[in-house]
Order: sequence, then structure tokens, then C-alpha cells
Amino acid sequence: MNQGIGHLINGELLHDSVTTQPIYNPATGKECGQLPMASRAVVEQALSAAKQAYPSWAATPPSARAQVMYRFKELLVQHQDKICQLITLEHGKVLSDAKGELARGIENVEYACGIPELLKGEHSRQVGTNIDAWSEFQPLGVVVGITPFNFPAMVPLWMWPSAVMCGNSFILKPSERDPSSVLYIVELAHQAGLPKGVLNVVHGGVDVVNQLIDAAEVQAVSFVGSTPIAEAIYQRSAQQGKRCQALGGAKNHAVVMPDADLDMVTNALMGAAFGSCGQRCMAISVAVTVGDHVADALIRQLTPKIEALQVGPGTDESNEMGPIITADQKQKVIDYIDEACTQGASLRVDGRTKTVPDYESGYFLGGTLFDNVTPEMTIYQQEVFGPVLVVVRVNTLEQAIELINQHEYGNGTCIFTRDGEAGRFFSNHVMVGMVGINVPLPVPVSYHSFGGWKRSLFGDLHAYGPDSVRFYTRRKAITQRWPSRGVKDGTQFSFPSYSEE
Amino acid sequence: MNQGIGHLINGELLHDSVTTQPIYNPATGKECGQLPMASRAVVEQALSAAKQAYPSWAATPPSARAQVMYRFKELLVQHQDKICQLITLEHGKVLSDAKGELARGIENVEYACGIPELLKGEHSRQVGTNIDAWSEFQPLGVVVGITPFNFPAMVPLWMWPSAVMCGNSFILKPSERDPSSVLYIVELAHQAGLPKGVLNVVHGGVDVVNQLIDAAEVQAVSFVGSTPIAEAIYQRSAQQGKRCQALGGAKNHAVVMPDADLDMVTNALMGAAFGSCGQRCMAISVAVTVGDHVADALIRQLTPKIEALQVGPGTDESNEMGPIITADQKQKVIDYIDEACTQGASLRVDGRTKTVPDYESGYFLGGTLFDNVTPEMTIYQQEVFGPVLVVVRVNTLEQAIELINQHEYGNGTCIFTRDGEAGRFFSNHVMVGMVGINVPLPVPVSYHSFGGWKRSLFGDLHAYGPDSVRFYTRRKAITQRWPSRGVKDGTQFSFPSYSEE
Amino acid sequence: MNQGIGHLINGELLHDSVTTQPIYNPATGKECGQLPMASRAVVEQALSAAKQAYPSWAATPPSARAQVMYRFKELLVQHQDKICQLITLEHGKVLSDAKGELARGIENVEYACGIPELLKGEHSRQVGTNIDAWSEFQPLGVVVGITPFNFPAMVPLWMWPSAVMCGNSFILKPSERDPSSVLYIVELAHQAGLPKGVLNVVHGGVDVVNQLIDAAEVQAVSFVGSTPIAEAIYQRSAQQGKRCQALGGAKNHAVVMPDADLDMVTNALMGAAFGSCGQRCMAISVAVTVGDHVADALIRQLTPKIEALQVGPGTDESNEMGPIITADQKQKVIDYIDEACTQGASLRVDGRTKTVPDYESGYFLGGTLFDNVTPEMTIYQQEVFGPVLVVVRVNTLEQAIELINQHEYGNGTCIFTRDGEAGRFFSNHVMVGMVGINVPLPVPVSYHSFGGWKRSLFGDLHAYGPDSVRFYTRRKAITQRWPSRGVKDGTQFSFPSYSEE
Amino acid sequence: MNQGIGHLINGELLHDSVTTQPIYNPATGKECGQLPMASRAVVEQALSAAKQAYPSWAATPPSARAQVMYRFKELLVQHQDKICQLITLEHGKVLSDAKGELARGIENVEYACGIPELLKGEHSRQVGTNIDAWSEFQPLGVVVGITPFNFPAMVPLWMWPSAVMCGNSFILKPSERDPSSVLYIVELAHQAGLPKGVLNVVHGGVDVVNQLIDAAEVQAVSFVGSTPIAEAIYQRSAQQGKRCQALGGAKNHAVVMPDADLDMVTNALMGAAFGSCGQRCMAISVAVTVGDHVADALIRQLTPKIEALQVGPGTDESNEMGPIITADQKQKVIDYIDEACTQGASLRVDGRTKTVPDYESGYFLGGTLFDNVTPEMTIYQQEVFGPVLVVVRVNTLEQAIELINQHEYGNGTCIFTRDGEAGRFFSNHVMVGMVGINVPLPVPVSYHSFGGWKRSLFGDLHAYGPDSVRFYTRRKAITQRWPSRGVKDGTQFSFPSYSEE
Repeated sequence: MNQGIGHLINGELLHDSVTTQPIYNPATGKECGQLPMASRAVVEQALSAAKQAYPSWAATPPSARAQVMYRFKELLVQHQDKICQLITLEHGKVLSDAKGELARGIENVEYACGIPELLKGEHSRQVGTNIDAWSEFQPLGVVVGITPFNFPAMVPLWMWPSAVMCGNSFILKPSERDPSSVLYIVELAHQAGLPKGVLNVVHGGVDVVNQLIDAAEVQAVSFVGSTPIAEAIYQRSAQQGKRCQALGGAKNHAVVMPDADLDMVTNALMGAAFGSCGQRCMAISVAVTVGDHVADALIRQLTPKIEALQVGPGTDESNEMGPIITADQKQKVIDYIDEACTQGASLRVDGRTKTVPDYESGYFLGGTLFDNVTPEMTIYQQEVFGPVLVVVRVNTLEQAIELINQHEYGNGTCIFTRDGEAGRFFSNHVMVGMVGINVPLPVPVSYHSFGGWKRSLFGDLHAYGPDSVRFYTRRKAITQRWPSRGVKDGTQFSFPSYSEE
Repeated sequence: MNQGIGHLINGELLHDSVTTQPIYNPATGKECGQLPMASRAVVEQALSAAKQAYPSWAATPPSARAQVMYRFKELLVQHQDKICQLITLEHGKVLSDAKGELARGIENVEYACGIPELLKGEHSRQVGTNIDAWSEFQPLGVVVGITPFNFPAMVPLWMWPSAVMCGNSFILKPSERDPSSVLYIVELAHQAGLPKGVLNVVHGGVDVVNQLIDAAEVQAVSFVGSTPIAEAIYQRSAQQGKRCQALGGAKNHAVVMPDADLDMVTNALMGAAFGSCGQRCMAISVAVTVGDHVADALIRQLTPKIEALQVGPGTDESNEMGPIITADQKQKVIDYIDEACTQGASLRVDGRTKTVPDYESGYFLGGTLFDNVTPEMTIYQQEVFGPVLVVVRVNTLEQAIELINQHEYGNGTCIFTRDGEAGRFFSNHVMVGMVGINVPLPVPVSYHSFGGWKRSLFGDLHAYGPDSVRFYTRRKAITQRWPSRGVKDGTQFSFPSYSEE
Repeated sequence: MNQGIGHLINGELLHDSVTTQPIYNPATGKECGQLPMASRAVVEQALSAAKQAYPSWAATPPSARAQVMYRFKELLVQHQDKICQLITLEHGKVLSDAKGELARGIENVEYACGIPELLKGEHSRQVGTNIDAWSEFQPLGVVVGITPFNFPAMVPLWMWPSAVMCGNSFILKPSERDPSSVLYIVELAHQAGLPKGVLNVVHGGVDVVNQLIDAAEVQAVSFVGSTPIAEAIYQRSAQQGKRCQALGGAKNHAVVMPDADLDMVTNALMGAAFGSCGQRCMAISVAVTVGDHVADALIRQLTPKIEALQVGPGTDESNEMGPIITADQKQKVIDYIDEACTQGASLRVDGRTKTVPDYESGYFLGGTLFDNVTPEMTIYQQEVFGPVLVVVRVNTLEQAIELINQHEYGNGTCIFTRDGEAGRFFSNHVMVGMVGINVPLPVPVSYHSFGGWKRSLFGDLHAYGPDSVRFYTRRKAITQRWPSRGVKDGTQFSFPSYSEE
Repeated sequence: MNQGIGHLINGELLHDSVTTQPIYNPATGKECGQLPMASRAVVEQALSAAKQAYPSWAATPPSARAQVMYRFKELLVQHQDKICQLITLEHGKVLSDAKGELARGIENVEYACGIPELLKGEHSRQVGTNIDAWSEFQPLGVVVGITPFNFPAMVPLWMWPSAVMCGNSFILKPSERDPSSVLYIVELAHQAGLPKGVLNVVHGGVDVVNQLIDAAEVQAVSFVGSTPIAEAIYQRSAQQGKRCQALGGAKNHAVVMPDADLDMVTNALMGAAFGSCGQRCMAISVAVTVGDHVADALIRQLTPKIEALQVGPGTDESNEMGPIITADQKQKVIDYIDEACTQGASLRVDGRTKTVPDYESGYFLGGTLFDNVTPEMTIYQQEVFGPVLVVVRVNTLEQAIELINQHEYGNGTCIFTRDGEAGRFFSNHVMVGMVGINVPLPVPVSYHSFGGWKRSLFGDLHAYGPDSVRFYTRRKAITQRWPSRGVKDGTQFSFPSYSEE
């Protein structure tokens, strides 16, 4: 039972226990901590800390700021086991998956180490006679990040290292479900030398989010979560005249071409669809088979593997899939499966009745596979965020692309093929922000940027990587000409006026 | 009397005369044309044309698209006299000023010629073993631009050449006051080979704007105008989940340091404050003098020059200042001056009663100068958009910077000094997007980007230059690995399966 | 008979006729002009003109320099027929090929138009407390280009537009064989407004080259030609302490994979091997077939097409291949073919005896095809620079790559395949600077850069594109801190010393 | 007495003691180690190790390579005291100076950590219809670095971290005078996980250097040292057809303007002229005073400070200046001073007779100051590399610039002024690669690049920073088009041929 969860403001842990809500271990269904919900006063305190810390942090040379990130990277590596245990405890994902998450987060820290290079502006000598011009990228002030439960350690690391290295101060509002890993990580950042107040954490729900967005101090908002919330946050930020990038939901399709190696595809889809119970915005939830023989063969290969999935507590290294995040969300997934059956989808593997011995109160589900799913069905249209893979059958690559392009989401997608043209045609025409060619989860490396298209992202700049540096800075364009007292005509330049004064 | 003003849709001029409103020559106060106000059906037609033109234009190689811009630049140069006459006729600015405006616009066309270089994505070989990743910048689809009266030719050229070169199609809603120059320019673009439907013009007011923002086809909105409208457009775009950059008002301060060369400052301020009647978002409307002796000397030098300003029709090359854009706007400026007098500002030169012989119905005003203006006065807080310069006295550079930083706008500013440190300290600390060091109107060259801070710009990317390329494109991140049939182990790579088939 | 060939120095054509040598029309074998060979005095004159023109040109804002390029591009398009006639007259290539050459050259002019963007330096604010640093790219001074006969118009346009836009002045020494097109082009550049002395042309042989390299004024040398000369020029430039990029010979292999579409390959190879008589540094002269059945089928398809090649004067639009550049070079090619026969290669099509009616004195050859060529044969090792294609048979892609990697040249290469992995594996591992995947002549577009590896290029920066901007400029790194008189401590900044004066 | 100095090849220390030479502690004049001079066989061993290590290192993803640099940075920080002791022992510089040197070296390691970002190539979609092109930057193979005595730790860190992160393997030939710190550093790199053979160290003189340059395996040569050697190495590398960057000597001028703050100038010059006994390629050895009163005042302020310089062993923290590197070099400096006296320079402070109690055999000299030096004097023309500062008097900034531009060297320079125009005019017109404005030693930060102009650098790319990434890589331009079997026409794409085969 974690008694220590607090807000982290101005480098200090703050226990503001007027209102709290329980945190559950989803593998056992038992409470494992109490989350304090920030009052308006606590949020004010965070805003004030961030505002006060800003000027001297913004004035610190980027190369000096970067030293914090180098030490922070070391500490993350040293303490990775502890962090991953906290992730698994509250989120439920298996430990190896937690390690994968953290590794990706550390890559974002590495990227942030390079801030002196990344902040370079553009310099133009002689834009006119004796006139120079350059553009600088200056920090914004206080910025806010609101992050989801499904990657409790990684998504915050997409945001604040970049924001903070750009010279901003930051307030993080993490998910209410699994705040402990990120809190621990933020403490490590302070150990690494981050000045107090530069990075603050407050817990809460929609009221806290709204207070943060509306606060006069706050210059920008980054959000990752579901599309309805993303949209609302984007709108509210704009209502306040603020810049916002809000990443929402997904329905990621994998296209399986007739020339694909089905062994490889099957393995890839098992991880992409069922890893972390499908609770990833990059999870593959739709397999689009080009040709019926492909569909038949793929289902033949997937079925036994899904049936054999090792489901159980994430702390047991032999498991492949842990529990769903909450009892509610488990029920929601079951409802989706029920409805799909009603709407005529062919249920090939049913994960609804899965139980895990000794963990009967855990929120476990087995892997589920549907065939003959069509675009009209709810299970196709909605983001299920559970261990459910559906097969949609088409006959041509173009039909596959059209299908994907008509879905409201456009986060990630992939194609399995050996064919150069199929890969290029697909990546060129698909209306999706992140594309894998034989890469089932095409999460961009940290030095590219992460973002979907259509209703998967609101805003114009993507998360982390180069776009995040642009998002967390303001362009300042300077044009300079020095008045002459005779240098240009070359005859009398000796600064007599100064020495004679 | 220009009978020919129409919408320009799918390459054709369309006269939709159900509703029209008059256009006036501000130098004479006489009607000089009738503007058709687009019905919903006409706007639909424009949207449909843009949507249809998009796919093949987006698929055209950028180097081929650029050929249109090269020819367009030639045509603009050839027809500059005609364009400038149209600007002066409807806007009123003097011809030399219209030429300056057009020259700046042409620079944006030149920038757009470089699109093959500007659209380069980032390529990373070997992000993992045998995995490559790259980011492409793909066009958005249909984008919309809404532009103000004060630079009828230039501001549209900030937007659509970049947007269109990025592969988008475009709908422009220009100002109702002075649409003829931009219409002429758009026709030249078609002469230069721009395919029909790629660039369309519709006229109208708030209803047309709202219809455009709300249209499902429209992916992005660029706006330049006043802050209240900019804010409303930013909010409405976000309400629709769309990206938007909305540039608003300004109150640009020039700081005059004790070491500044006052002859130079006086000349610079005359142009920066009174050029185009101060109807520029980069006009200097506040002179901040550091030290009373600077204020006294500056006012001494400015007064006779402002009194001697040549005011009259823009078509007469001897004039320095033309009329205000409308009778209403003229009255508004007079009201501001009246109120400033009431609030205690010291009127040094009064331009309210200026009349121009033979042009008594024109909307002329003389230059006006106030001393002893304070931050509490309306004339200091509001963007007057008229030929009014106010002097605010401070004692230190830091007070000057604090003053500027507390204003709600942060568009442009400049400092006059010879001192390296003063220039750097000012440019580093002032919360303004465009800074001049001894450059009174620091409009960035076309290969940098234009944008203010605070309530002068809503959005995160600035107008034209590099930021506009990012604004008018979507990032697509591709991660690619090709499955191996034996290449990697280096022993048996002969594609046996192919050759044996 | 072109009487007008002269040096072009300081904007003036100079006829220095002490020593001249004839220029021949290779289609007729008749003299068509006399080339003046520059004396030491003439070269001095060019050096002096370039040196004098440099300072004011270097001080001209890049955006102003670019205006010359925009006009120059227009003139090149207007006068393309004339230019192509001059190319064909002296070089012999068919007119459509001359047009292709010129089009590529014009793309380099377009790239140079973007110089304001390309010259941007890097700006870093706050590298230490109150210290800024930036890097500028300043011009070098006088630079020299030495260009080959095979692309008389294009290769000079690889060099001087970039060099001159960077702010340098330039001396071009074109090929002695076909100087007229480039002279005409340089005259157009002057018509476009290039100031006198910025671009100069001198004719001559090795003495002129050496004098240019050794001249104290000359800062950099660009060369394109054969490898022995390239190497000598690289060494001599270094001996003088100068930077140099020297592009040499090639032996470009096309790998034909078993899955390639042989119709497409055959068409591609016809153009790539026999276009311009194979006198291109990017010509494909070796087809590497993976699998004997590929070799057999390819030869079956190539043979009738090579036999049917239309050979004749380039001025006749129905011809596909014109004459070899000189009688000597024709004989050299015949000698290579003879030797290959002796060394055991299988002659499939013999072009040695080709004659063209009415053009019996022209230097024509037919297309030649060899099978069973091995790495030990002279015809494999040497760059033939004639219409000769040889087939080398291998069994695996890895053997193909090893073959290519062991050749002394590494200019261009390509692979024909549909397979994504084969394409990536090849492009990743082949030691060649320019790689085509199903693109037979992978000459990079003008906004990338051109250069081979191994003994195909001496130097570290490639020709044209981004590398050329770096080659033609010097980096200057500036670090700046302004001394404070009280600004930094934030309390007393009022420039008392100034205001008290 | 360091018994452990060996070559470091393939990760192992190798004691090859056939030929050795002594290493001296310059503070005591006593031998402190024996340097083994590599035989041809040992050099072959290093070449072979580097060649063997190359392929798998080159194939390692850059992000994985970077992990070595992160750990290496930690180890350098942990072991900085040990490293600095080794520097001071063999070089003589005071410990605080050794720390400064190491800190700068670590910054280069930080820059190298960012290699995934730095290696990004350029990607262009749709350069033609369905054709993409991109440029990659691939490693070269084995590269060589030859480094000087004066920064035994830092200069090697300018080279190999960048080269090795680019994927190359490296052979370092450090100075014979002070090899121990760099050896220790290279061992730390191996502790950090650098694979064996990727980085090797061999000791020796000109024979070893020549063998390395001439070796077929070696692709590129980086050198820092004196100009005559730099020139010879540049020429020899080119003779072998190899790329080379060779940094040579310097004569760095500081211009003191009449408005400069002389207290600040005096302090700055003390460090810049006498730090490390002036044995820095960025040392200021000439003060150019604008106006006689400036010269007089400056000399007045400098004289007592130079006389009071604390000279003694670098291990004593109270000392400001240690010994000269060798007895020979000490004598050479004395000879220069003698000759300057003979040639008419006015000796203001004479450091020739300085002795340090208890260290009578150390190679100490005191600080020396000359007035009235002219460009004709040997002490002005030559790089003295000792604690000697000369004053050259001029009357205008333009004379100062002309003086500097006429010197054969153009490494670094600085100006002291408050005046914006003087700073810009100077930095714009001075023919020097690294310019300080009120920054006496304008060594660029690690994310810019280091290099002089004129005879201070041979080559076109500068050391470390962005230029070094370009130097240590080869550009590969790939153009790709996939053949179509019907995808484009949209009717029949189901890859039937594959599944039916």
C-alpha cells in the first residue's frame, strides 16, 4: 500500500488529503494506494512554483540545462527495476513490457540531452546592405502536460524533458490510475539536479485539468488520451487563446498482402494486438487481409496462438498479458465483444471468460479474435482498448487503403509485404500519421516525432522529437542594422567622439 | 468603376450578384466598384473546386509545381504598375508604398520557388538493425486564408504561394474593402499555369468565413486581421478540430536610447508611424524615450516634420500619406485622439482637421503626435490604426522593456542605439515576436517567418517562411524493415524461391 | 563555321588568336570552329577581372544576387533551342538528349535561386551566460571550374551558379571540344544582369589549368573529367594548399535480379548504355545478371534492339545515337572491343563497322554487346566511354555487390528488382555514391548532391546541391558577449554615462 | 615514472619497446616516462585491428553506438582529477587550465551523444512521378587523427568521438610529448563499452604518420599542429587521393577600440596571452590598439600584471603559468625575444630570466610584453607559441582589419568594443575563421565547428561540430522507383501472380 503518493510542487512532496481516490492493483482488484486530488489552492501553488522557477531556468544556458538530462538518464537506467515494478503494480502490464515502455521513455531523455543542437536558430547575414537577421527559439513560460494511464512512465517523458530543456517550466497532471512510476521518475529528475519548481506534478480530474488550462500563467498544453477528451482540451485551450497539441484515439489497421510471410505476420500481430492487453494507442486492432486465402490462412495461424496466450499478473515473467486497467474498462470490452456477436461478426476466439487462478478478482480477459468484421460494426468503428483483434477482408490493396482512409482515426498503420511498390504505394497514400512497412508498431524513434492524422491528433505539431522543440518554443525574428559614423566610407573611422568625450 | 469584381472559382470569374456591397475610393469617397457577397452555394462551389483539384495537384512533383511560381514571379514583375494602381485605388496608400508592399509579396513568391528544398524530410538509416525511418511532409488538402485590407496584395502572398507549393489547394477570402489587386494577381497565377481549382477566391463577410471554417473539406485556416477576430477564428477553428494560425493586432513600441542618432530616429519614425496612415500591423505607434532630454529633443525634431507631411491622394507621387481606408475608421481615429486629450495626453501635432483641396470627400487625416502618454490611457492600450504617434517617457531601458512586456500585444518593436549590449539585452528580454535593432519596421525577410507573441498571434507556427511550410503540411513518420529470406546471414542469398518458381 | 569563339573576360568576348586549335563537328568530321588557347597573359586578365569583381559581388545581399538567377533561368528557357543546336553541333549527341542535358542544368540554376535559404547559418543564443554564438558561411573569393566535353552545358551549370550565388567570382575552363554552348550560356547570364568579372571563361589545355590552380587569387578548384586528371588536379590543388573537389571516371553496374521485369530492364539499359554513345559518367556499361536464365533472357531481348539502334547525326530527330566525340576516341573504343574479343568475351552485337550514309567521315559507331565478361578483362576494368555494354554473370546479389565493391570506381549503380529487401540491402551495402533502385541513371536531383565514391571522386564534398554550398563557402564562427555597465544586475541600468554627457 | 605507456591496439595495451624515447616533466626537466615508437609492424597491427572492427561497428545503429558515449561522458567526469594530473605532469600547464581543457573535450563527447540526430539524411518524396530520392551519410572506414602536445586530452576528443559515432574506426597518433592523459581516456572509452579495434592508439614520429596516411585502409586524415606540418600532411593525403583536414598555426590579434573597458581588456588579455604559456592555437599574441592613447593606457595596465604573474609548477594551484613544453621550445622563444629587441621592438616586460625556486631545471619563462611592434618584425610574423604579447599600434579599425587580413594566418581574433557597428563591421570583414566580440578566446562551442582561414587550415570542413560529421561521412544519394503491376490504375491489385505462382 503506497502511502506516499502526493503532489510534487517546488521539489517537495505535498500530501493534500482533503479529497482522495483509491488506486487499484488491476491484477488483484485490491486497492494499493490513495491518490490525493488537488484542490484549487494546490493547483495555484503548482502554478506559482512553476512561474517563479521559470525566469532563472529560462536564462540558464541550454548546455547547462542539458547536464541535468545526462545525470537523469543515468538515474533512470540505475533505477529501472523499481520504476518497472511501480508500472506493473498499478497498470498491470507484464514487466518486460514495462521495461520496453521505460526504454522508449529514456530515448526521449537522450534526445533532450541534445538541446544545444536542437535549439539552433537560423542566421542570415546581409539580408540587405549591412543588415543581418536571425530567428531564435525562446521558451514559452509555464506549460502543462496531461497524460494517460496506458504508458504512465513513457508519455510524460515524451513531453517534459523536451519542454524543460527548451527552457520552460512544467506542470504534469498524470493519470489517476497509475501515478507512482511517474512520481518516482520526477523525484529522480530532481536528484539529477533539476531546480525546484521547474517540474511539478499535481493529481486530479477534469477540474484540475480545466484550472490548469485556464490559468493565466499557462502558455501551452500537451495532451495524450482519448479523442473526445483530446478534442475538448484542444477547444478549451483555443478558447483561452493558447497553443495545444492533443493526441487522441486510434484504430490501427495492419494490411496483410498475399506475398507476406504469414509466420512473421502472425508473430507480429500477436504482440501488436495483445501486448499490454491492446491498451496502446499504437496497438493493431484490425487485420485487413488482401484476398480470402490470406484471411483464412492468417486466422488458422492466429487461433491457436491466441488460445495459448499466457494471461496473468504482470509480475510473473512467464505471462504475456496482464489485466485490463479497471473493472469498468473490462466490462466495456466485454460489451463490445457481445455487440459484435450480435452484429454478425464471427467470433473465432473468445476471451471473455478467461480467469486466472488465485487472481479471480483481477481484471483479466483472454485474447479475442473476430473474422468477417465490416465497417458498419461498432467493434470496427470504436477504439476498444482491449485484447481484441478483428479481421476485415478486402480484395485489393486499394480497397485496404480506402478502408483505412475512411476511418475517423489515423494514428498508426502497417503493411506486411515484400513488395517495394506495395510498401511505397501504401505509405504514400494512406492517411495515417505513422506508417510501418513490416513494422507492426511503427512508433517513431525519439529523434523523429509522434503523431496521428485526422481525429487522432488536434494541432499542427507532433509529440516529441523535432516537432516538440518547435511546439515548446516561440520564434523570435530579429533584424539588425548598426548606424554608421563613417566606417562605410572608409576614411575617418577612429571613434574620435568616444575618446574625446 | 470596376464592373469586373467576381469570385474566382475553378479558374473562372464568377459574378454572383444577388448580394453586393460597394467599394469606395478612399481618396474621393466615391464608389469605385461593387463587391459580390458569396452565397452559401457559391462557397460550396469553391470548396468543391478546391477539393477536386487537390489530388492531382498534391501528386504533382514539387519541382513541377515550382515552375508555376517562377513564371508567376515574372508576371508579377511585368504587371506591377497595374497591381499597384489597383492597390492605391481601393486602399488609398501612395503608389511608392504599394510598390513596397508588392515587392515584399514577390519575395514570398521567390521563397515558394524553393519548395523542393523546403519540403525535404528527415531520413534515418538503421534506427535499429536493418530498420530505416524517415519523416515526410505531406499536404493537408483544402486550406483557407482570410486576409485584411491593409496589405491587399502582400498578405495573400504570405499564404497561398506557400500553401499551394506544399501541394494544397486554397480558398482565399480577401478583404471586402480592396479586392481588386488580389483578384488580378490570382489571374496572373492562372496565366502562369496554376491548374484550375487549386486557388480560388470568394468574397464575403462573417458568414462566408464561418462557412469556410466549418466546411468538412477545410483542413487549416490562416488569418491576418484584428485581435478580436483573430481570437474568434482561432476558437472556431479549434471547435472544428482544425489547425489555425491567426495573426491579430499590434501596438509597436520604438525605444529611443540616449545614445541614438536622433536624425536617424526621426526619419525612421516618420515612415514607421505615418507610412500608410499607420494602418500597418508593424507600424510604430509608441515612441518610448529613455530620459526626458531624449523625449524633448525627439519631439522637437518630429513636430515640424509631422506638420509638413504631404497628405493627399496616393496617385500623386509627391504625397507621403494617403487617406484612411473608410469614413468610419477615420472617425474612430478622431475619437481616439479626442479621448486622449480628455485623458490628459499632451497633443503636440493635431491631424484631425486636415483637409485636402479637391479631395474634400476623401477620408484624410493629418499626422498626430502626443507627448506624456501613460499606460492607463486608451490611446496607449488600443491599436489605433491611424497616423498617430504617442511618446511615453521612461528613465531606463529596463522600464522600457517592462512597459512593452506588459502590453497585451507583442507583434513588433525596435530599439535605437549604438550600444551592443543595449541591443542584445533588449532583443533577448523583450516579449515581442519581431525585433528591430535600429530597424524601425522589422518585418522578417521572406526566408524567416512573421509572427507576434502574446495576443498578436494565436497558434504556434508563424506566417510565411519556414514555419508556413510546417503549418501547411502534415508530418508522416515511416518506419521500414524488409523481411529477409537469407540476406542477413550472408550465405545463401540467391532468391531461390523466385528463380525456382 | 563559328568565328566567334573567344574567352569571356570581364563581360567581354576576347579573341586571343596567337594559338588556336580546331573544333570538329563529329557527325561530319569537318572543322566547325577555331578555339583560341589562352596565353598566360589572358589567364592573368581573367584572374584579375575575377579578383576585382569579387568584393562588391560578395557584399551584395544574397537575395539581390538571386535576381540574376531568376532572369537567367528565363533566358535559358527562351533560348534552349539555340543552346541545344550548339551542343549537338560540337558534341554530336542527338537533340532530344541535348535538351535533357540542358533541362538538368536549368534545375541547378533553380536551386541557386534559393540561395538566401541555402546560406543560412546556425545561431545559438546563450551558449554561456549572456554569450551568443553563430556560424556564417562566407564566400571564398575567386574559384575555378574545369569541365568535360560530355555535358558541355550541364556540368558548368553544376558549378558556377552555386559558386556565384554564394558570393564568389568564377573562372571557367570548359572543354576544348565543345565550348560554344557554354559560351552562349555565359552570355545569357550577363544579359540577366550578372556583373562583369564575376564569371569568366578561358580556353586552353593543361597549361591554362595549371596556371589557374597555382594562381594566388584562386581559393578553390572544381573539376569533372577522367580519373587520372581528377587525381592530378586534386594533388596539385592540395600542393597549393587549396580545397578541391575532383570528379573522375566511372564503371557503372546495373544488377538485374531474377524478379525484375525484363521488358522494363531492356528499355532502361538501352538508354542508359547507349544514350549519348555511352559518353556519360553515369552511363551503365556493365549489366550484372543474377542467375544464368536472367542473363540469357536479357541478352535475347537486348540483341535485336541494339542491332536496330538508329545511329546518325544528332540533328536528325529520328536518330537515337549520334557520333563519338573524336576520331581518336572512336578508335580507342574499337581497340577496347578488339581486346575484349582477344581476351575471351563473347561478342553478341558488333558496332565497330557501323557506317552512316552521307556521313562517312563522321565518328560513328554502332552499339556493342558482350556476354561472359569477367573482372580480369580490360573491357571490364576500364571506362570505355563508348556504346559498349558488357554482361557479367553472377549467381547471387551478394556476389553482385562484391563485384561492384571491388571495382576501383564507385560513381553510380542501379538494381532492378521488385523486392523491397533486395533494394535496401543493395543500396545499403554497395560502395557507390549514387544508387538507383529501378532507376538506371540515378543522377540526383539538383537539391541533392552529385558524387561518386572510391576513385570516382577526390574530396569530401560532392558537386551541386547542398554540398556545393558548403564547398563554395567558408565557415566563420562568431562568439559574442557585450560588456555590461549594469544591465545584468537589474537595478541601475540607465546608461548614466551617456545621459550625463 | 610511468612505465605503462604503450600502444593501444584492439583494446589491448601493447609494449613495443624496440625503439623508445623519453618523456619529460617540463616543470622539473626530469624524465617521467618512456614512449615506445611504433615499428611498421605495430602500425600494421593497428590498421588491421581498425579494419576488422569496422564492418560490425558501422552496422551498429547510431543510437546503440551513442550509448557508449553516454557512459564515456560519465567516466570522464568521474576520473577528471586523474586525467588532469596526467596532463599537468607531462604538459606542464596548471591544473585549473587542464580542467578547462578537459571540460571542453567533454563537450565534444556530449555533442557526439547526439549522433542519431546529427546523421539524419535528407528525404525527398516525389522528385518525379512515383520517384523518391534521399541522401544518407555513411561512414568512411578507417580514419586517422594526429594531434598536438598543447591540448593532449582535448584535441583527440575533437576528432575520434565524432568519427567513431559516425561509424568509423579510428587510429590516433598523439603527441610524443604528453601521451598519458589521452591513453587513459582511451582506456575509459573501452570501459564504457567501445568495442575493441574501433579506437586504437599508436605512438611515433613522422614515419608512423606517413605509414598511416599511405595505408590503403585509411580513408581520411585529421590533423592539428603547426602550419608546415599541416601543409605537408594535407599534400601527402591528397597525393594518396584522400580527404584531409589539417589545422595549422595561428597569430591571433585582439583589437582594442577606444571605447573598450580597459580593465576588462587587461584581464582578458592576461589569460588569453599567457594562459598555458601562450601555447594555444587560440592564444592572443598580438594586441592591436586603435589610437596611441589606448596603447599607452593598455601597456600601463598590463605591465604590473605581467610582472606579477605567478609562474611555477602546474601542480601548485596558486600558480598561473607553468613551464614551456621543452627546453628546445623555451630556447626558441628566447631567440624570438632576442631578435625582436634587435629589430627595434620596445621590450616592456622581459620574461627571459625568470627562474622558479626549487625548479631550476624546469623550462620556465616569465611573461613578456613588447610595444611598437611592426608587421616587418619576425616576432610579428611567426607563431611564437610562448608567453609573449606584442602591441601593434594603428589609428583606425580599418587599419586593424587590414593588418589582420594581411597576416598569413587566420585562426582566431577578437575585438574589444561596446559599439554594435564596430563589432559587426569587424566580424563581417576580418578574414579569420573564429571571431570574438569581447570574447578573447573565441573557441566555438562544441555544436559549432572549429577552424581557421588562410594558412591556419587546409581543407574545406572544420573540426568538430557539424562539419566533422560531414567530414567523417560519405554522402550516398539514392533514387528509387518501384515498377508497377497495376496498382496505379486501381483495378486489379491483388498480387495474383505471387499467390498463383
